[in-house]
Amino acid sequence: MNEKQIPDIVIGRLPVYLRALQRMAQEGRQVTSSQELGERLGISAAQIRKDLSQFGEFGKQGTGYNIEFLSGQLLEILKIEKVWDIALIGFGDMGRALASYSGFNQRGFRIRMIFDSDPRKIGQEFGGHTIFSSADIKEKIQGSGVQIAMIAVPAEFAQEVTDNLVEAGIKSILNYAPVNLNVPPNVRVQYIDPAVHLQRMTYYLD
Amino acid sequence: MNEKQIPDIVIGRLPVYLRALQRMAQEGRQVTSSQELGERLGISAAQIRKDLSQFGEFGKQGTGYNIEFLSGQLLEILKIEKVWDIALIGFGDMGRALASYSGFNQRGFRIRMIFDSDPRKIGQEFGGHTIFSSADIKEKIQGSGVQIAMIAVPAEFAQEVTDNLVEAGIKSILNYAPVNLNVPPNVRVQYIDPAVHLQRMTYYLD
Repeated sequence: MNEKQIPDIVIGRLPVYLRALQRMAQEGRQVTSSQELGERLGISAAQIRKDLSQFGEFGKQGTGYNIEFLSGQLLEILKIEKVWDIALIGFGDMGRALASYSGFNQRGFRIRMIFDSDPRKIGQEFGGHTIFSSADIKEKIQGSGVQIAMIAVPAEFAQEVTDNLVEAGIKSILNYAPVNLNVPPNVRVQYIDPAVHLQRMTYYLD
Repeated sequence: MNEKQIPDIVIGRLPVYLRALQRMAQEGRQVTSSQELGERLGISAAQIRKDLSQFGEFGKQGTGYNIEFLSGQLLEILKIEKVWDIALIGFGDMGRALASYSGFNQRGFRIRMIFDSDPRKIGQEFGGHTIFSSADIKEKIQGSGVQIAMIAVPAEFAQEVTDNLVEAGIKSILNYAPVNLNVPPNVRVQYIDPAVHLQRMTYYLD
C-alpha cells in the first residue's frame, strides 16, 4: 500500500469520509453509496470513488459500501485502529479546551502529557496528568514513544517549542499558534487558526 | 476585481500570506520577497507570485514587496480592513476558549453574541456579553447585521443550530462540531476538527 505515492490531498479527505461513515453507523445505517456520501460532504461521488480506489476495492457495483467494513478499512489505512499518545504544549484557554475534549479518545488519540511554562500551572493536576514544565519537553518526551504534539502556546513561543519537540523526536504537530513553523522535512505540521478560516470566508461577503 | 472568478484555494492562501507579512512587520521588517515568504510558508515563490498576480501588481521586479503595502492590499481584498461581528453558538470548553481568544480583535473579528442551550449558562455574563438562549438565535441575529457564526456545540445539535443560523441570515459558518453541515449554496462553511487534522498525519507515522 505504501509503494505508490498517494497525494496528501487524498489522504486529507479520508478522515472526513471516515467521520461521515461513523456518523452514519451511529444513525444505525449499514450501507451507503458514493452518491450519498458525496451529498453529505459536498464532494462529488466520482471524487470519492477515485480516492477510495487508490487503496483497494471497497464497494460492489450496485450495492454500495458496507459502512462498518469501509470504516474499518479507513481506520487501518489511517493507522488509527490503535490509539496514539499526544503531548499537549500550552495549558491556556485553548490548551484546557483541548485537554477536556472527549472526542479524541473515540477517534484514535489520547493526551498523555501536558506542558506549560507558567510556574502557577506547573505541578498542578488535570484529568489525571501532572502539568510538566515546558523546560522538560525534551527530557519527558524523548524515549516515551510519543510522536504527536499539539501546540497551543502564544505565537512568539511556538517556534522554540517546535524546535524542542523536533529534537525530542516528535514527527507530527498540530499547531494552534497563529504562526508558521519551520520544521525539517520528516516532520509534518497541520495548522488550526480560526482567524485564517474566517478571513477566507469574508472575501465572499458584502 | 470580482469580475473574474478566482479559485477558492487561492483565496484560502491569502490569509496565510497576510499572517506571515504581519509577523514580519512585527519583527520590524519593511520589505520581503516571494522567495523569503515562500521559505517561511513552505510554498513555492512562483505559487505566491502567481496567486498575488491574480489581484494586481504588488511588487517590483528586483525590489520585492513592501510589507505594509502588501498587507494593506490583502486586508482590502479579504475585506478585513473593517471588523466583522460574530455570533458564537455553544459556550462549553471550546466556546469559552474562543470567546476568550484575544487574537480575533487584531485580525478583523469581534464576538458580538454568545448563545448556549444550558439554562445554567443562559443569562450569565462573559466578557461584556450576556449569554443568550439558543432558542433565540433567529430573533437575536435577524436584522442585527451579523453574517458570521462559529458553532461549538456537540455534533448532534450542529445541524439544527445551522438551520436556525441560515434562516437568521448567516452567510459564513466556522464549524467546530465534528460533523458535516448541510447548507444552501449561498452559505459557506469552514471546518475545524482536530481529530481530522491528526488522522491526516498518522497515515505517515510508523
